Amino acid sequence: MSTERVINFGAGPSALPLSVLEEAQKGLVNFDGTGIGIAEISHRSKEFQAFLDEFEQNIRTQLDVPPTHRILFTQGGGTGQFSAVVLNLLARHRLLHPTATPEETVLDYVVTGSWSKKAAEEARRLAAGHATVRTVVDSRVYSKDGKAYDNIPPHAEFAFSEDPALIYYCENETVDGVEFSHDPQSPASFPFHLLKRDTLVPLVADYSSSFMCRPIPRLADHAVIYAGAQKNIGPAGLTILIVRQDCIVDVDAAARLGATPVPLSLSYKILADSGSLYNTPAVLPIYMSGLVVRRMKENGGLPYYEEMNRRKAQKLYAIVHEGEQKGVFRRKVQQGSESWMNAVFEVLGEGAEKKFLEGAEKEGMKGLKGHRSVGGIRVSLYNAITEEEVDKLIAYMTRFLGES
Amino acid sequence: MSTERVINFGAGPSALPLSVLEEAQKGLVNFDGTGIGIAEISHRSKEFQAFLDEFEQNIRTQLDVPPTHRILFTQGGGTGQFSAVVLNLLARHRLLHPTATPEETVLDYVVTGSWSKKAAEEARRLAAGHATVRTVVDSRVYSKDGKAYDNIPPHAEFAFSEDPALIYYCENETVDGVEFSHDPQSPASFPFHLLKRDTLVPLVADYSSSFMCRPIPRLADHAVIYAGAQKNIGPAGLTILIVRQDCIVDVDAAARLGATPVPLSLSYKILADSGSLYNTPAVLPIYMSGLVVRRMKENGGLPYYEEMNRRKAQKLYAIVHEGEQKGVFRRKVQQGSESWMNAVFEVLGEGAEKKFLEGAEKEGMKGLKGHRSVGGIRVSLYNAITEEEVDKLIAYMTRFLGES
Repeated sequence: MSTERVINFGAGPSALPLSVLEEAQKGLVNFDGTGIGIAEISHRSKEFQAFLDEFEQNIRTQLDVPPTHRILFTQGGGTGQFSAVVLNLLARHRLLHPTATPEETVLDYVVTGSWSKKAAEEARRLAAGHATVRTVVDSRVYSKDGKAYDNIPPHAEFAFSEDPALIYYCENETVDGVEFSHDPQSPASFPFHLLKRDTLVPLVADYSSSFMCRPIPRLADHAVIYAGAQKNIGPAGLTILIVRQDCIVDVDAAARLGATPVPLSLSYKILADSGSLYNTPAVLPIYMSGLVVRRMKENGGLPYYEEMNRRKAQKLYAIVHEGEQKGVFRRKVQQGSESWMNAVFEVLGEGAEKKFLEGAEKEGMKGLKGHRSVGGIRVSLYNAITEEEVDKLIAYMTRFLGES
Repeated sequence: MSTERVINFGAGPSALPLSVLEEAQKGLVNFDGTGIGIAEISHRSKEFQAFLDEFEQNIRTQLDVPPTHRILFTQGGGTGQFSAVVLNLLARHRLLHPTATPEETVLDYVVTGSWSKKAAEEARRLAAGHATVRTVVDSRVYSKDGKAYDNIPPHAEFAFSEDPALIYYCENETVDGVEFSHDPQSPASFPFHLLKRDTLVPLVADYSSSFMCRPIPRLADHAVIYAGAQKNIGPAGLTILIVRQDCIVDVDAAARLGATPVPLSLSYKILADSGSLYNTPAVLPIYMSGLVVRRMKENGGLPYYEEMNRRKAQKLYAIVHEGEQKGVFRRKVQQGSESWMNAVFEVLGEGAEKKFLEGAEKEGMKGLKGHRSVGGIRVSLYNAITEEEVDKLIAYMTRFLGES
């Protein structure tokens, strides 16, 4: 049995900093000098509450979350939030428009990849008969082959509804490797300028695979931002929410007006009123994520990670581009829409992909196989992946190109 | 900062075996020789799948779960299941009775403590306008003071409905320290004999705080058994389900017939069809729970734990009883209904409870304070608490009695 750690380029669950793992090893047996391990301690103990408060504060400070927004912690991942955003924001809309018909109750979905597609499908399941789910834009229409999620469509194509109950987008599509640009001048940036700013727009963003890799543009304009922890900041089992206060509504009052009732575990109001401790939270995933975010702060916070992640992505795309020129690699995503976090490309030629993966594994690099639905290679470059590790992969890719 | 482990009698999250914590320390950095830590590895890797399969098998074998029942893993705790059982079993009922009126769609709740009361309240929220929630029995009626959950009512008081969509009970009330007896002759046992046995009864049991402390009587007669992991078998963040196949229904077909749509993360069908891997599961809590259940098997399985837990409870109640004779302690639960897992009692006299807790803490015993809603002392005797640890507490209680 090997005792060496490998480099894990997996898309999630994904690599965590070794220093955090080593600290968590101690906490497992004795958390903060309590004589009780972190997996065993009461979530109502003062020690855990202090840890949770620091965790929240470290997110708030680094992402610059204003007091208009609550930071909440829950379970169930992105899939849980596919449902929760629909139910909570339909309840909000019902309270604002008690007599709105299903035709007047519109959910706007921006579909740029597998995850936003799934989110829109869940909205259709839950809202059937109560609301109308609209696809604002479907990026496949603008793809090279008409079938792939390989781009962020141009701003002119975003046809938002007049007064929707929510506007949904996925900032980074983990499977397809497509991400909104954070440069507002880029045609691949999110078209915030098309949204009304004189009202509280119900803008929802899935930030699962890009949370805390760089600042969030126009964070304060969002109604809900959510992220599973298992990419940049921790183990699976924790979901982080940033919710604007007007979206924390009395879902029971809305139900009395005809909205679908919201299960306890999906209600933002229950979470907010209890400080995320209505029921036992995922203490251990919270602990490890809290250690990661504390370490991020010590390293200089988001500016440090943004710069590092920019360099990592630029270097990697440069070698993919070089391989493309030589006819060895092929990029799957259109220029300008490439994800910083999940770089996807193909290795051309019979058996070449297998050879690429085996060669990488032989050098201690794992997790490079693309998602089963799209194939190819996927390199995930989350915060815990160091520049040295990316350099090692690039050195391997360079040799691979030389031998191809 | 102390480095000594204390004895943790907390009600949950609660003590875990030190040998498991030490093994998990290694797995955090390198799981099963993969060179990747367990919190970082893909839930779709063959190594994790093998671990999950073994975990499931170890539960199946030890609890003797028949092939009529699936074992599923999810997130969200008991609170998530308060909602899920209602939605899934209402969908099942709708498919069986497509034209049933809300009056003909009945949910039967057995209320014997704080948790079953909460579960019934959630049913009322979700089923409003669609179904009728009935209290089969409320144990407060049979309590010493008419207000406390201090007993399991006599069998003659259980008034089940004719053809309910579900029958719900909580096997062990963690807060109140009330538990069904597993001796079928006892008046405090669950009155299975009152249920029809010629049909698939939709019997639902919350086993959160007594899961795998002893065998489950008439397991095969249950529709759904669920448990949060954070008592006997692992960290918070994992919920274990045992679901009879006829309760895994096409919730979308039911919704087309008028049932409330079921959010993805609460649908038993989604979980079952994906082998509990529809979305990323709580890998780390699954891992630690899997280690605990593997260790249980090595120790001799449930017969070993049942005997040990019986002895622990008997010893503890004996000293509480002795203290009651001396006017120092007072039991809160009626004879025959006392929980094996959570023993609750009062320490009588001004400031006596505080003195009791402080004295215990001085000797390295923590987590003995009763739930804030009922007060007093609560001693949780989950599987990871050893007989030696109980003996140490009893020695302290004996000295406390001598000094009182």
